[in-house]
Amino acid sequence: MNNNNGVASTPSPPTTPRLRILLSIPDTERAAFISPEIREALNDLGEITEIAPAELQTLEAFAAAAADKDAFITAWGFPRLDAEHLALAPHLKCVVHAASSLHALVSDAFWATGIPITQAGAAMAPAVAELSLTFTLNLLRRVHQLDHRLRTGVTWVDARNVPRAREISGARIGVVGASRTGRRYIDACRALGAVIRVYDPYLLKGDPLSASAATLHDVMATSDVVAVHAPATKETEGLIGAAELSLLADGAALINTARSTIVDMEALYKEVHSGRIDAALDVFDEEPLPADDPWRSLPNALLTPHLGGATVDSRRRAGGIIVDELRRFISGDPMEHALSRTDLERMG
Amino acid sequence: MNNNNGVASTPSPPTTPRLRILLSIPDTERAAFISPEIREALNDLGEITEIAPAELQTLEAFAAAAADKDAFITAWGFPRLDAEHLALAPHLKCVVHAASSLHALVSDAFWATGIPITQAGAAMAPAVAELSLTFTLNLLRRVHQLDHRLRTGVTWVDARNVPRAREISGARIGVVGASRTGRRYIDACRALGAVIRVYDPYLLKGDPLSASAATLHDVMATSDVVAVHAPATKETEGLIGAAELSLLADGAALINTARSTIVDMEALYKEVHSGRIDAALDVFDEEPLPADDPWRSLPNALLTPHLGGATVDSRRRAGGIIVDELRRFISGDPMEHALSRTDLERMG
Repeated sequence: MNNNNGVASTPSPPTTPRLRILLSIPDTERAAFISPEIREALNDLGEITEIAPAELQTLEAFAAAAADKDAFITAWGFPRLDAEHLALAPHLKCVVHAASSLHALVSDAFWATGIPITQAGAAMAPAVAELSLTFTLNLLRRVHQLDHRLRTGVTWVDARNVPRAREISGARIGVVGASRTGRRYIDACRALGAVIRVYDPYLLKGDPLSASAATLHDVMATSDVVAVHAPATKETEGLIGAAELSLLADGAALINTARSTIVDMEALYKEVHSGRIDAALDVFDEEPLPADDPWRSLPNALLTPHLGGATVDSRRRAGGIIVDELRRFISGDPMEHALSRTDLERMG
Repeated sequence: MNNNNGVASTPSPPTTPRLRILLSIPDTERAAFISPEIREALNDLGEITEIAPAELQTLEAFAAAAADKDAFITAWGFPRLDAEHLALAPHLKCVVHAASSLHALVSDAFWATGIPITQAGAAMAPAVAELSLTFTLNLLRRVHQLDHRLRTGVTWVDARNVPRAREISGARIGVVGASRTGRRYIDACRALGAVIRVYDPYLLKGDPLSASAATLHDVMATSDVVAVHAPATKETEGLIGAAELSLLADGAALINTARSTIVDMEALYKEVHSGRIDAALDVFDEEPLPADDPWRSLPNALLTPHLGGATVDSRRRAGGIIVDELRRFISGDPMEHALSRTDLERMG
């Protein structure tokens, strides 16, 4: 490809080859990711064909859409890029995933092609970190308990009879996983005066967070709130089990906005149901969470339906990442958020 | 009084006259305000007699408790210091109120005595500001709506169908009242990246906040969230009425952790009930809020039972203020948080 004249340095007219791009984002999310400005920038980069992933579920439909495309912009619900689908996309040279996790999208066959793939997970980190901060403040202040009591007919006096609230300034907050999201969360908590301890076995010596490093045992045993920000990998599966949860002090709380596999959810349910600790959760073993799931009726749990990364702002940032990554690809530069198979195994 | 040798400069033994102090804090709050350390410090300052306010409700009981006392440490529920009660406390020289508002405690007769009175409201400001921040994050992220939906049997998919969440970083936050609490709130919101506009007609030109000053109209019309941090005075009564609420953008939200009189609660109820805006409230026109109050069933309202100032940390700070103010009084220094009648009218 003749792509040495980067788009960035020659604003207009574009001298780079125009890609044929399949843009496939669910209807409910497309406008959030692809603002008119982002759409205009994409139009400058290539020929855009928009087809929702719901309409690509048969091989025939996929073949018709993919046959001549150079690049896919994908999101939740896009067909898995297995050998069968890849055979129907002979020109495919680049995949930009608008969401975060690639697990449902990639396959052994995909990695074998060497086609570069990137994702916009970076756009979500600040949103997830903020939800975790929101949960933290709720749990420290017992706002969830107070609100639930007032909403279920409890008298004012009884509603007030919860364990006394703690302020975040001076609170001891434990973080499991010094991920991108974890670091954002730590910055926000520290800006509000919290004292942080972080468990991450991969923390390097020179890392500024290493001064706050602690064992998982100590993080669980000495925190008012523990927030999970680790990736879902084989190594982190069940990392926080019954033994770890039992280390939490009475009245402490656990937050999970990462993935449910990291926590033994049955053990957590027992501890929260007993009233010994509180929890705030954005992720669950079974999603969608059934309407009669017992988590839904625990008065000392705060629940959101896996929307940690889904803000107006994160979608806008993701749109920007999509454009930037495609520009880099066209210019022959490495994509900033490209992932290899090894990366994926480490990141979850 | 021979009180030139301040306690601060001569740690022990105390050479200052020992005050006879009536310590009267409700049973449910006493331990939170008066830790063992605070109690020890009080013992160094005087002879402490502890009687709960509930036991001072007859004139006879009050007379027996107050007759020989030099100072009162008061809190919620202490009898009003009117002429009748003051006549029963002939030695009274100082009042330290452990809570914030003095309205229920003082009277014309009290102000006429010239007895200095101080309060520990400063201890609560950071706690109230943090609750307001907690509310802000909840409203921006629609956590209250999401949690309420999941708890009332709504399907996962329907639960997710709320107006898309906003991050606090970059959010436009309006503040009504540049009070001590309002300033704390502003600092916290700014630390998280919010853009602040503040309405306060008493903001001085040299005030760092004057660069963010706006009219009430503009604050209401251009904010994602408006937080009330004004005092409850004659001037602020009904400050935010139907006309002001109608200026809020669709999907915006109002927070009140100050006093309900500042907001027309009926007008607010109409707007929240319609679903046009959300609200988070710690204060109500009728407290205790009746069990069947319609606010309690609004899915887009977040409610707490007037506990904004009540944290472990604020009580501890208040204990420290009580001791410090008594020390100042004994040393003949002005008390740092002493209030005059004029102060009270301005502060609410």
